Amino acid sequence: MNDISDITTGIRGPVETYKRDQIVDAAKEHFSLYGYAKTTVSDLAKAIGFSKGYIYKFFESKQAIGEAICASCLGAILAAVEESLADGTSATDKFRRFFKTIVDNSAELFFADRKLYDIAAVSSDEKWSSSVSYLARVEEILTAILLEGRQSGEFERKTPLDETCRSIMQVMQPFMQPTMLQFNLDVLPDGQTAVSNLVLRSLAP
Amino acid sequence: MNDISDITTGIRGPVETYKRDQIVDAAKEHFSLYGYAKTTVSDLAKAIGFSKGYIYKFFESKQAIGEAICASCLGAILAAVEESLADGTSATDKFRRFFKTIVDNSAELFFADRKLYDIAAVSSDEKWSSSVSYLARVEEILTAILLEGRQSGEFERKTPLDETCRSIMQVMQPFMQPTMLQFNLDVLPDGQTAVSNLVLRSLAP
Repeated sequence: MNDISDITTGIRGPVETYKRDQIVDAAKEHFSLYGYAKTTVSDLAKAIGFSKGYIYKFFESKQAIGEAICASCLGAILAAVEESLADGTSATDKFRRFFKTIVDNSAELFFADRKLYDIAAVSSDEKWSSSVSYLARVEEILTAILLEGRQSGEFERKTPLDETCRSIMQVMQPFMQPTMLQFNLDVLPDGQTAVSNLVLRSLAP
Repeated sequence: MNDISDITTGIRGPVETYKRDQIVDAAKEHFSLYGYAKTTVSDLAKAIGFSKGYIYKFFESKQAIGEAICASCLGAILAAVEESLADGTSATDKFRRFFKTIVDNSAELFFADRKLYDIAAVSSDEKWSSSVSYLARVEEILTAILLEGRQSGEFERKTPLDETCRSIMQVMQPFMQPTMLQFNLDVLPDGQTAVSNLVLRSLAP
C-alpha cells in the first residue's frame, strides 16, 4: 500500500522512471551529506554528474526533488506499518504496533541520518503534498483500527468516530511531526509507550 | 502562588527590586518590538536609557534578563491557572480549566505579542530554569487534580499516578511548548478540547 509516491507534484518528463529514480537516489545521498536547505539545483547537478538541464527534464524545481525523496521515505514508513499490522492479533495490539512502528521508523529515518531531517521538517512545516498524503493515509489506517476495535467490542462506541480519530492524531503528533519529534527523542521509547497506554485507556468501553 | 519569579538565576545586585523591575519592564518592551535574539545588552542599554554598567549591576547577562521576563510571563500563566481552579466544581471540571487556561494564556502571551514568542521558545528549547520550574509547577498542579479525582471516585486508580501524570504532560506538550504550539494555533480551540476529552475518557474509572 505504498501509494503516496504516485501523487508527488512537480514531476515531469518521460514516463520511464528509471532515470528519475537515479536522480532521486543521487540527490538523497547528496542532501543527506550536505543538507537540503543549502544545496541549489546547480550544486546538485555538479555533484551527481548530471547536467542541470537534464535534471530539469524530470523535475520542475528543487522542491519537486525534495518531495520525491520525502514521498519515498514516508512510503517506507507506511510499508513498515502495513507489514507490522499484518501480524496484529487484535485492534488493541494493532494500535500499539501502528503507533510504535511510525515513531521508531520516523526517529530512525529522520535522525539516524540527521541531514534528511532537514527535508522532512520543511516538508511537514510547509505542508508539501507528500506530507499531507502521508498524514491522510495514517488517519485512514487509524480509522480502520478504530472501526475493528468498535466492532469486536474492544473499544467504546459512544464518542463519534471522527472525534476519537482526530484527538488520537493530535496526541500522536509530537511523535510524528519531525519538528516536534526532535524534542522527544530523549523520552523514547517510554514517552511513546505511556501515550499509547493513555490512548488505549481512553478507548476502553 | 506566583513563586517562580523568585528562582530566576543570574540575577545579582542590591535586594531592592524596584530598579531591577524597571529594567525588566523596559527590556520586555524593547524585546517585544525588536526581538530577543538580535538585541545585545549594549543595544538594550542605549534604547532604554540606562548605562550598560548599570544593567550589569543587576543582571549578569542578556539571558538573565530574558529569564526574568520569561519568569514573569510564565508566572502570569500560573496565576491565571490558580485563579481559574479556585472556581472548579470537581476534579473533571478542574482538569478542563487547568488545560484550557494554560493553552489560552500561552497562545495569547506568546503570539498576540509575537516577538515575545522568541524568548519563550529559546527558554523552552534550551531548558532555562524559568521554563523548568514552570513545568515542575504545572506537573504539581496536575498531580493535585488527579489525586482529588482519584479520592472522589471520578478518576480510575489502577494506573500508577506517576505514569498517568507523565502521559498527560506528554499529550499536553504540543499545546504548551512554544515551538510546538505555533503549529497548533490553527486547531485552537477545538484541537485542545478534543485532547481534553480524550484525557478525561482515559481517566474514567
